Amino acid sequence: MTIALDAMGCDNGVSAVVRGAADAQKVFPFFRPVFFGHEDELKPELEKYGFSEFVHASTVITPDEPPTLAFRRKKDSSIVMGLKYVKEGNASGFVSAGSTGALLTGATVIIGRKPGIERPALGTIIPAKKGFVLLMDCGANMDCKPSYLAQFAQMGAEYMQKCMNIDSPRIGLINVGTEEEKGNAAAKEAHLLLKESGLNFRGNTEGREILSGEIDVAVCDGFTGNILLKHTEGFAKIMMGLIKEELMSSTISKIGAMLAKSSFGRIKKRFDYREIGGAPFLGLNQIVIKAHGSSDALAIKNAIRQCIEFSKDSSYN
Amino acid sequence: MTIALDAMGCDNGVSAVVRGAADAQKVFPFFRPVFFGHEDELKPELEKYGFSEFVHASTVITPDEPPTLAFRRKKDSSIVMGLKYVKEGNASGFVSAGSTGALLTGATVIIGRKPGIERPALGTIIPAKKGFVLLMDCGANMDCKPSYLAQFAQMGAEYMQKCMNIDSPRIGLINVGTEEEKGNAAAKEAHLLLKESGLNFRGNTEGREILSGEIDVAVCDGFTGNILLKHTEGFAKIMMGLIKEELMSSTISKIGAMLAKSSFGRIKKRFDYREIGGAPFLGLNQIVIKAHGSSDALAIKNAIRQCIEFSKDSSYN
Repeated sequence: MTIALDAMGCDNGVSAVVRGAADAQKVFPFFRPVFFGHEDELKPELEKYGFSEFVHASTVITPDEPPTLAFRRKKDSSIVMGLKYVKEGNASGFVSAGSTGALLTGATVIIGRKPGIERPALGTIIPAKKGFVLLMDCGANMDCKPSYLAQFAQMGAEYMQKCMNIDSPRIGLINVGTEEEKGNAAAKEAHLLLKESGLNFRGNTEGREILSGEIDVAVCDGFTGNILLKHTEGFAKIMMGLIKEELMSSTISKIGAMLAKSSFGRIKKRFDYREIGGAPFLGLNQIVIKAHGSSDALAIKNAIRQCIEFSKDSSYN
Repeated sequence: MTIALDAMGCDNGVSAVVRGAADAQKVFPFFRPVFFGHEDELKPELEKYGFSEFVHASTVITPDEPPTLAFRRKKDSSIVMGLKYVKEGNASGFVSAGSTGALLTGATVIIGRKPGIERPALGTIIPAKKGFVLLMDCGANMDCKPSYLAQFAQMGAEYMQKCMNIDSPRIGLINVGTEEEKGNAAAKEAHLLLKESGLNFRGNTEGREILSGEIDVAVCDGFTGNILLKHTEGFAKIMMGLIKEELMSSTISKIGAMLAKSSFGRIKKRFDYREIGGAPFLGLNQIVIKAHGSSDALAIKNAIRQCIEFSKDSSYN
């Protein structure tokens, strides 16, 4: 199985991507990576792991460039070239840690939307009290029509069914109250659409219930979703930091922390985004996985794993 | 100092409110509570603590009633009667754990907005990495015009200056990226208004930076704010639960947890909403504090403390 990898645009450089691919190949020997990036940077890294297949891309789209403009101007960038390679049927999917905006614009234009989908969206798997929740949209669409939200639910249900083996994924509409008439204008109308959708719609989900394990797909606009997701990341870090600080504040608690070290390790692992992989762009004709910008080799490996698992599903490719 | 207290609408009943008032009076002997609620429920509780002043309110507005309708119909409810009492100058402020919607509608109509404020908003103080952040709006306004957001910033800055003694409160606009052109339509325009506002505007604040301690007021629409706030509450609970579960999983870690018990106690206290008090409704001519629906006596006591501290400020009353 061939997967196109964007070797550029990762904060940890080309080496993290190449090493992640090598680690993925140990688990999935049938996986064949094709790297997209500048040959001067790529070649020495590829040699280290015995890889040889790459496509030279002379430029990179950076996250601070306006995505639409960058996409139009930088035809020779790793994102544009990689997406075209996938579109032409040379690979099963594309994994990139580069600019989210450019990746979304590029994927929508080059790879195209699935029939009936107005806007592709970015889904992120997050650990819940029990199991996982797919939060979407996580930042692809800022101002959302109610129909977009209903389609996010549909795309999310399909993903959770096919990639996480959940029979009838439970859908929650993120909202400020459980009552049908609660919320902003888009959420109120989306509630009505979801009720009629034939999906396993569980109604509105309040903020405190998102991770309760009662739903499999949490639907919201990309503005709310992006803020929620990043806040969760930031808050987890702050809490773990405070706990560490408190535990180091006395000798007794230091000993306590030492004895409980493996427990903390497991918690940390559970909330480690690197273990989960990337975020799938859903609603496209082919598979595009957005890896975290600050991915290391472990995160890249898991984003590739996700792409492989998603590729196995027959409704794609 | 007289403060009107809604004795109804608290999940923990009249007794939590009366006991909270008694505890507050121990700290603030000048505090004189006037309770609003049904006399049959109130009288026996008041007798326990030697309180006597109350106003009989024969009905209660429940959180599942449409606020505007309930406010119009239930003139004899504890919320409506309490707000009128404050409006008539009989008390310095009103504290209620009842329906947020009814409280907001009632306060806006009865007490009235400050000049130049289009929409009052609900602010909530949350603990950050260092210090505290005032998050607003936390649920009063769902679809917000850019001008509302700019006014939230102004109201929030005033509150943090006067009640938290912060000289020049740092304002962050919650958004999906730090760049000026990021966000939904309202956030983009609000950014421009805030740049011109004369406030200490620090630009856009991404989700992961909300609690970093770099800002004092985090501005967003009430839809996003409510979801963020409740999610934070839910996530903290889930994390503490997971940590507890992990620590109880082996004898060694159990001993570790026992030794580190006081550290965990301090963390728990730091994230305990009951220690913080209620959420002020800002932008009104008088002081209205919304206490958490599931407040116990400690939470009520701290909501009263907040009302007292806010009342001391000369720009109100």
